[in-house]
Amino acid sequence: MNSNKTSLTLLGLGAMGTALAHSWLAAGHPLTVWNRTAARAEPLAAKGATVTATAAEAVAANGLVVVCLLDDASTAEVLAGTDLAGRDLVDLTTGTPAEARTRAEWARSRGARFLSGGIMAVPPMIGAPGAGAYVLYSGSSALFDAHHDTLAVPAGTEYVGADPGSAALHDVALLSAMYGMLAGAAHAFALIRGEDVEPKRFAGLLAGWLTAMTASVHGTAERLVSGDYTGNVVSNLAMQVAGTATLLRTAEEQGVSPELLLPYVGLMKRRLADGHGDEDTTGVIDLLTSRRPSAG
Amino acid sequence: MNSNKTSLTLLGLGAMGTALAHSWLAAGHPLTVWNRTAARAEPLAAKGATVTATAAEAVAANGLVVVCLLDDASTAEVLAGTDLAGRDLVDLTTGTPAEARTRAEWARSRGARFLSGGIMAVPPMIGAPGAGAYVLYSGSSALFDAHHDTLAVPAGTEYVGADPGSAALHDVALLSAMYGMLAGAAHAFALIRGEDVEPKRFAGLLAGWLTAMTASVHGTAERLVSGDYTGNVVSNLAMQVAGTATLLRTAEEQGVSPELLLPYVGLMKRRLADGHGDEDTTGVIDLLTSRRPSAG
Repeated sequence: MNSNKTSLTLLGLGAMGTALAHSWLAAGHPLTVWNRTAARAEPLAAKGATVTATAAEAVAANGLVVVCLLDDASTAEVLAGTDLAGRDLVDLTTGTPAEARTRAEWARSRGARFLSGGIMAVPPMIGAPGAGAYVLYSGSSALFDAHHDTLAVPAGTEYVGADPGSAALHDVALLSAMYGMLAGAAHAFALIRGEDVEPKRFAGLLAGWLTAMTASVHGTAERLVSGDYTGNVVSNLAMQVAGTATLLRTAEEQGVSPELLLPYVGLMKRRLADGHGDEDTTGVIDLLTSRRPSAG
Repeated sequence: MNSNKTSLTLLGLGAMGTALAHSWLAAGHPLTVWNRTAARAEPLAAKGATVTATAAEAVAANGLVVVCLLDDASTAEVLAGTDLAGRDLVDLTTGTPAEARTRAEWARSRGARFLSGGIMAVPPMIGAPGAGAYVLYSGSSALFDAHHDTLAVPAGTEYVGADPGSAALHDVALLSAMYGMLAGAAHAFALIRGEDVEPKRFAGLLAGWLTAMTASVHGTAERLVSGDYTGNVVSNLAMQVAGTATLLRTAEEQGVSPELLLPYVGLMKRRLADGHGDEDTTGVIDLLTSRRPSAG
């Protein structure tokens, strides 16, 4: 196949790997793929992908090797019998920051440059411009720069630092925050359930309200940087804790378990009891990290 | 004072009441105010407000009476000695849905029309066009229609139904959802703390990600309406629960307490254990309301 597009190898054809493969093929990149279950490679072969029998052959085929497997243990297992010398290894497998750092060291010791990626998207968003998908990358900036155009085909790119664990840290932090928001939304839907409230109209109000409130994270960042949690506080912790009583009484009135609200309210109350009623809610972050030796 | 703007009375000059008063005065509405601590009314008197010595005099002064007090008990106490016959009472005091319903019945029995409001804003946003402030209203639609132009002066308006408790229910639901989001954001900031990550850049990624994820509430609403939690599921509950293991391991690696994540993860696991692994996360809502007799 003639192409001025970078050729690459992809290991792992789960839902995400398959979506990545299709986007690179559609953009004209010569692609070699391997998957433990070979049948998953057949539709890609029909679209021009080279399918190898072993991971070692796939790794040997190209300088740029992308891995998208179930977990870090799978990555270790699949790459064990391959020659990584001189390879640019991009690991899109989900894992923890510590796993990414260990994997980076492991790859370097085998002669490969290493870039870790955290995909902020579900498979249908891959290769769909405007869907907002992006991948957080960290590790070798030389690798990132050399292959940026290829990496940018399936989704947007966001390089977050040389620490190979940083992409996973960002990925996990964003996903964790999302589950907090989903928990809040679940509680809200539980409250209106059974009442004369149209869920779809409520969802519109909820999405608009939450979107407006996301702006608060900028103030939180500023307070963390300055160390002063009392500046520009409109509704202080004492007022907010007082207000949460209405939220908890309403949950009880509506027969909704308060279990998703209580931990955050409990931390706000602890911070208030510690004498920080004039702060905003940023001090809750201190309480979450208080067992860590380095935390203030 | 000559004005073709509706004259009205406002009881309660806390931070929110004061902001409301300033916006009506600035828009040319003849305003009568009363506050338990009379000194708070002085700056408003200087701007043309009529100040009364008693709540009863203030209520007698105008057909439209807005109340913005500390809580429903304060409202009951302040209005106890007033004549509400023929009055249009707009209660912006924060409370529960049941309190609003009881207050509406109480007002009707005294000959007043009643509208309950939940203010989705902090005081600096009042009277500031473009700040996005709005008030949820429920109760008498006749009152709302008659006074819409006046009510729309300090903030946008959103009428959510004839049930007087509906505005408070919406208010509490939106605030509860916000605290979920703040909890998620706090956990996320705790994870990156002490790492080589610039909080302000992280906040930008976080705000963008959360904003994108707010769209998920529309799917939740559709699933609640249809009763089918398995339609159009991209990442099912079984996959999501598996993914949360990485989130919890990362929290442990980073020395961050998982207390804000665990309740939602626990509910996801319970729903999965109940055999709903092919659903999305909507079933969590069922678990929150499972002690309510009417819940399915």
